[in-house]
Amino acid sequence: MEDVKLFGLWASPFTQRVIWALKLKGVSYEYIGEDLGNKSSLLLQYNPVYKKVPVLVHNGKAISESMVILEYIDETWPQIPLLPQDVYLRSVVRFWSKFIDQKTVDMMRFFRYDGELQEKAMKETLETLKVIETESQVGENNFIGGNTIGLGDLALGWVAHTLVAMGDVIGVNFITPHAFPNIHSWMTNFLQIPIIKNSLPPHELTLEYFTQKRKMFLAMGKQEVVDHHHHHHH
Amino acid sequence: MEDVKLFGLWASPFTQRVIWALKLKGVSYEYIGEDLGNKSSLLLQYNPVYKKVPVLVHNGKAISESMVILEYIDETWPQIPLLPQDVYLRSVVRFWSKFIDQKTVDMMRFFRYDGELQEKAMKETLETLKVIETESQVGENNFIGGNTIGLGDLALGWVAHTLVAMGDVIGVNFITPHAFPNIHSWMTNFLQIPIIKNSLPPHELTLEYFTQKRKMFLAMGKQEVVDHHHHHHH
Repeated sequence: MEDVKLFGLWASPFTQRVIWALKLKGVSYEYIGEDLGNKSSLLLQYNPVYKKVPVLVHNGKAISESMVILEYIDETWPQIPLLPQDVYLRSVVRFWSKFIDQKTVDMMRFFRYDGELQEKAMKETLETLKVIETESQVGENNFIGGNTIGLGDLALGWVAHTLVAMGDVIGVNFITPHAFPNIHSWMTNFLQIPIIKNSLPPHELTLEYFTQKRKMFLAMGKQEVVDHHHHHHH
Repeated sequence: MEDVKLFGLWASPFTQRVIWALKLKGVSYEYIGEDLGNKSSLLLQYNPVYKKVPVLVHNGKAISESMVILEYIDETWPQIPLLPQDVYLRSVVRFWSKFIDQKTVDMMRFFRYDGELQEKAMKETLETLKVIETESQVGENNFIGGNTIGLGDLALGWVAHTLVAMGDVIGVNFITPHAFPNIHSWMTNFLQIPIIKNSLPPHELTLEYFTQKRKMFLAMGKQEVVDHHHHHHH
């Protein structure tokens, strides 16, 4: 009997990658939603280094870091492989998975700010999207590195979902056919996969979540500005 | 006939990881040293995203990012595997490889500064070493995740070599048996592997390189402070 538990946060792009992989592989699992304001002692025990979701616990053994978890899932349940057979193509997919994973947090920075800071962070987000658009050959096949969904697509998946919701909240449409034709056509393919489509949280719920989050960030930002001024003048 | 080329910089921790892996595997390769002040057009063509060494070119196909290259090498030349057989242990090694890889640049920041900035950056370096010391079980076996050298050890290898040289330049001994007993015993094991020992650049050369580098960083730092003042007052 397999015992698979996933500690996650439903709105987290990093958690969603793991959910998508488990569902694509057809692995049953128990989902444990974490309250990030009050993390469970189990989460802290399972991920002492980062103290972050997602954590996958398979037969009592814990694995952290979404991309490490995806490689573990792919090796443990080899059906519907997430990496190509060809060794060189595997390295291409790993390169882009790593690139996207490393940029994910920075690409969401614009959402924390308004005004000049937002504009500056947004410029960086657009620059990163441009690199993905022009260098990753995302438009050459249906998916990154081939015609079936894999590691790179699961890494980039948040752009088709979380980034869209964040854009909706602040009134920006990032992935248009005009601005990013390759990413746009990839996004269409990605969202057409039944398992992806059916496991995305409802758009209204996501929108509500990020609307609240945005209010919180802006309130925090104003607080930081005040703190900064105090710090400067004392 | 295999055609393997490595574009690198002899003193770069990221290049050294790849050299160690190729030598451990017994792969013959042509080494092309890059001048970072005047990068070759081939390097820019092979690594358009980062424009950085190391780049491995195997039969005309280029792979960038040291950790991606190491996985490619391990899959292409399976002799002397760099990852354990056990899937869970593989994920443990991948987790620590990723952790160490992501921290490498930040862990070297102290070397750019003196005074308060150096102290602050050094504190971060020591905190990261502490995490590796206490959480990675680096002292439980001879190497990270087992008793043979692998991906995690190649990622951490720069601590046994570059960090020691940087410490020598500024007069700090980071890895003492007292401060980091586990990392210290790992380092002893690592440096005893003949292929590692024999492929390290001579210590005097490394010391000379980082002594020059240090002078350059401090001159740049003073320049930055001047620029910053100008910026502030105009």
